[in-house]
Amino acid sequence: MRKVYLSNTPRQGALIKFLDGVKITRRTETAAVPDTLGRVTAEAVFARLSMPGYHAAAMDGIAVQSEKTFGTSDQNPLILKPEVEYHIINTGEPLPSGFDAVIKVEDVQFLADKQAEILAPATPWQYVRAVGEDVVAGELIVPARHCLRPPDLGALLAGGITEIKLLAKPQVAVIPSGSEIVDPGEKRNKGSIPDFNSTVIASFLQQWGAEAAILPPVPDDPDQIRETLSSALEDFDLVIINAGSSAGEKDYTFSAIEDLGEVFIHGVATRPGKPTILGCVDHKPVVGLPGYPVSAYLSLEWFVQPLIYQYLGLPLPQREKMPVTLGRRVVSEVGVEEFVRMTVGFVNERYIANPLTRGAGVTMSLVRADGLLVIPANSLGYEQEETVEIELYRPQNELRYNLLAAGSHDLIIDLLATALKERDPRLHLSSAHLGSMGGIAAVGRGQAHLAGVHLFDPETEEYNWPYIKKLLPGHKLHLLNLAYRMQGWIVPRGNPDGIEAIEQLADLKLSFINRQKGAGTRLLFDHLLREANLSSDQIYGYKREEHTHLNIAAAVAAGTARIGLGIMPAARAFGLDFIPLIEERYDLLISDAFYNSPEFKILLDIINDPQFQKQVEAMGGYSLRNAGRIIEKT
Amino acid sequence: MRKVYLSNTPRQGALIKFLDGVKITRRTETAAVPDTLGRVTAEAVFARLSMPGYHAAAMDGIAVQSEKTFGTSDQNPLILKPEVEYHIINTGEPLPSGFDAVIKVEDVQFLADKQAEILAPATPWQYVRAVGEDVVAGELIVPARHCLRPPDLGALLAGGITEIKLLAKPQVAVIPSGSEIVDPGEKRNKGSIPDFNSTVIASFLQQWGAEAAILPPVPDDPDQIRETLSSALEDFDLVIINAGSSAGEKDYTFSAIEDLGEVFIHGVATRPGKPTILGCVDHKPVVGLPGYPVSAYLSLEWFVQPLIYQYLGLPLPQREKMPVTLGRRVVSEVGVEEFVRMTVGFVNERYIANPLTRGAGVTMSLVRADGLLVIPANSLGYEQEETVEIELYRPQNELRYNLLAAGSHDLIIDLLATALKERDPRLHLSSAHLGSMGGIAAVGRGQAHLAGVHLFDPETEEYNWPYIKKLLPGHKLHLLNLAYRMQGWIVPRGNPDGIEAIEQLADLKLSFINRQKGAGTRLLFDHLLREANLSSDQIYGYKREEHTHLNIAAAVAAGTARIGLGIMPAARAFGLDFIPLIEERYDLLISDAFYNSPEFKILLDIINDPQFQKQVEAMGGYSLRNAGRIIEKT
Repeated sequence: MRKVYLSNTPRQGALIKFLDGVKITRRTETAAVPDTLGRVTAEAVFARLSMPGYHAAAMDGIAVQSEKTFGTSDQNPLILKPEVEYHIINTGEPLPSGFDAVIKVEDVQFLADKQAEILAPATPWQYVRAVGEDVVAGELIVPARHCLRPPDLGALLAGGITEIKLLAKPQVAVIPSGSEIVDPGEKRNKGSIPDFNSTVIASFLQQWGAEAAILPPVPDDPDQIRETLSSALEDFDLVIINAGSSAGEKDYTFSAIEDLGEVFIHGVATRPGKPTILGCVDHKPVVGLPGYPVSAYLSLEWFVQPLIYQYLGLPLPQREKMPVTLGRRVVSEVGVEEFVRMTVGFVNERYIANPLTRGAGVTMSLVRADGLLVIPANSLGYEQEETVEIELYRPQNELRYNLLAAGSHDLIIDLLATALKERDPRLHLSSAHLGSMGGIAAVGRGQAHLAGVHLFDPETEEYNWPYIKKLLPGHKLHLLNLAYRMQGWIVPRGNPDGIEAIEQLADLKLSFINRQKGAGTRLLFDHLLREANLSSDQIYGYKREEHTHLNIAAAVAAGTARIGLGIMPAARAFGLDFIPLIEERYDLLISDAFYNSPEFKILLDIINDPQFQKQVEAMGGYSLRNAGRIIEKT
Repeated sequence: MRKVYLSNTPRQGALIKFLDGVKITRRTETAAVPDTLGRVTAEAVFARLSMPGYHAAAMDGIAVQSEKTFGTSDQNPLILKPEVEYHIINTGEPLPSGFDAVIKVEDVQFLADKQAEILAPATPWQYVRAVGEDVVAGELIVPARHCLRPPDLGALLAGGITEIKLLAKPQVAVIPSGSEIVDPGEKRNKGSIPDFNSTVIASFLQQWGAEAAILPPVPDDPDQIRETLSSALEDFDLVIINAGSSAGEKDYTFSAIEDLGEVFIHGVATRPGKPTILGCVDHKPVVGLPGYPVSAYLSLEWFVQPLIYQYLGLPLPQREKMPVTLGRRVVSEVGVEEFVRMTVGFVNERYIANPLTRGAGVTMSLVRADGLLVIPANSLGYEQEETVEIELYRPQNELRYNLLAAGSHDLIIDLLATALKERDPRLHLSSAHLGSMGGIAAVGRGQAHLAGVHLFDPETEEYNWPYIKKLLPGHKLHLLNLAYRMQGWIVPRGNPDGIEAIEQLADLKLSFINRQKGAGTRLLFDHLLREANLSSDQIYGYKREEHTHLNIAAAVAAGTARIGLGIMPAARAFGLDFIPLIEERYDLLISDAFYNSPEFKILLDIINDPQFQKQVEAMGGYSLRNAGRIIEKT
């Protein structure tokens, strides 16, 4: 078994070395102007014809010879004969030969015999659109390396250009590698991984102006990988292999590139994205991308996007940047540049950003992210409430309308997100799964608009309010009921262990899967343990945590856990059995500022909407008997 | 002859009335996920499968049963048997049944007989990627009305979704109308106008997510226009007629819409864009766009883009805004909202913006514009040096690299623009055609990086420097020679009037076309007049002005002027005769700040490049004997 370690080359240095070592030869192609939107010119284009090609009337009216109108006035009107001394002319029509001015129709009085009376002289060339006013022959319309926009196409056609020379799109081969890789649509077995990375990579390339071909997956076989690479190099300008880019037993991308050409970089000092390979074969660029989705996409952006833009001669687009306040502490290791996906919301006139999971494998973190925090290699990270600059994935003026839901996760929150967007396209609900306790704290710190909470207080036998009073004394807050929902045991279909009581978990040594600290469901489980006089040591898997109900159900469905505590729709989603235990109240804790905002009115309107309530009830396990009612307020 | 006047409805009110009165019924379609980039979801999509679908190794190493490793330490190493107590496992591979942790390969010592020695215990589930970590079944992947980005496609495929329901693109008919309209590629006659507007309109629609069909042009015939509209309404969601939208004799768009349905608005209080028609037939939107290109495109953006985005349920994109300093005064009429296209440059640490021509017909003003100044209806405009906010057509971080060339126009400036972009894609050279005098003033006010000047001083018989010394005393400046060039008479081919001397212009009463005030060429003409003892009154057309050499040549070529003064390549571009008169020095006046910038080094490098010089010489009429030499400096 090999033990090879990757290098830790700083990202910027790796990019420079790569761009210096490779070359994509520019090719051109000719296309009809209407088909060139978003394409890039290969050369400067000069107008061939003028537009207009003649002097044209700029107004509806009459064409006159200005010289003959001199001296005309109210006191001294002039009467013009049709077809001889004047011609009726409409906007855009050519001036008759010998005529040099237009008088607006409003300023003309038509008399008998079509004679026209005017009360003021015309100055030469008044209301005349000169030849070449729009585009003049010989004029530069667009320079070389110009990305064509709609008005450019208009100016080209106006200037008599119907075909232009474009830079051909660079052709990129995407080679999915790995014996475990199957087509995304294929049936999945244990150990098989659907190749969704290739589609994402190809889509990014398409967005950047390249053309990507996804080749058939290649198994983990050094010869096959080398041969596929070798043959792709014949037909493409750039080859991307995904993955096998690390230094593991079955990672053959490195040796394939090195056998045929040269590896410049193996390993960049980033997290995620470290196992990246940058190399070439006869100066043709070859990139080995990591297998983890987030790593692969970030690495693609760092190293392949600049290459494509360099080929097209376009400036690399820069993401909009914005200062935000951190809602949570973000730690980082010295020596690696870290890339943390963030959600952003506009709470109490501040942009608050919270980190999403850092897992390199979590595609959903990119789907959910509003921005990206780049932590430099020399930084240990940032403290809560610190101001940091992030790169935005969505425009700042849209983030203004981002609502931040912290706290406990419930599937109703997902439905709310969709319904909000339908009411007002600008409204976007981002969820941070912090658990009920974390949600209360976030609202208290002014870092979230609302938080889902379901916390049973054994002392008062009340839900939520005792905790909120204790944790946020003196805050002005509103507690709105969203639903009552059943919590219960999530177990394999048919309840093979015959679960009825919590004691069975300890007695049968069932593999349990727990929720994270601060989650209402975890507190409920702890409460149940105490009631049954059990200690957490007696539960196998007590320390194994997941952050959502669905992930609990997924573990039970996969057979890696035998039982979990959660809500009914999660069990349903996986076709599992659900043994109801307790009905709990799930409320939304709402800051006073949000309570008084127009967005809250929309939210409340949705919660009270019978159509929406039907959707919720269809998921099972919910009662909406108090939905939309304010339960408590300070 | 009708005298119908348009209404002056404020733009925002017109939009609201239009959106309230029309409706596009949403249609959906199903598509394979890889084909949905940039499309919009019709409904929320939830994951069908989990990714990964099994517990997988997150590291290369060995899979173990954590329970059996408890108590292991340096002092108390543990030796594991292959295939029984441990399994070799690579990243992404499923954990064997009964195994619950991974030990990294770096932490394993392999002994004889493939036995593995470890020196530390494994905690349960360490280095294990849990089922559903990436995407968990049942989880919301994307809400309805979501515009799909590359990572979204990855998450969908990961979640077992291979097909989704999209909003069908709205189908738009574009009807070009006007008897003068011909196909862009067709031969143009006097009075014919190529239909380039339709291509621009269709391209904008495509960019916004609609699908446009350009119908064959319809002549100015009320019945044909009504019939074409009526039949388009059967097949399309939205119909656009371009143009005939004003109230002139041959403007039939209004009556066509009113005959079949209803007109909400005829005339908006904007400049350009006033003659816009907003209406409907059975709630289906119909828009009559003005014929002038700039009017048409702005009106399209004001009224059609919101309609499309409303259909797609997406927030209307907002252009980036930025405060700029006005390099020139911009006046406006009270009662109309004005839209002024602007160039922007970063000069002496300030963003300086200058208005381009306001002609509604000048497509090139949109091509050249870096931003748009919107002057509210209640404003009289803004003063020079005032700070105003403009909407950007190009990202601010690119405008940082915009170089502003003011002053006299020369075709070499166009070549420089193209060459700069080729050296550094970020460099963009915007030209404001202010004439030599205007250019000197602009550099003096810190509103331009450089200015082209060619000003003959009769007193000293020197070029440029006497003017600069007089106009900008005490400024630190550099004067760089770009070229010597021939000025001469531009006359019809064959020189039919046998032009040799300036006196002939007066004697033969030739129709002259002049350059604008402050242009070096106009000063040269004035100098020639004085030398010949002629007064400007003796020159027919002295007051008729154009702003570029090419426009002078275009007027002569079109026969609307008989003679003009200009440079040789302009005459050449139109196949005209050129009678050389005087060789003049064309210099670049350069501010000290720009002189010391890295961008100037690039500019100078281009001017000295033999390849570039060959290009310039090929245009004819230039001598580069001193090109790139500093002539004077303070």
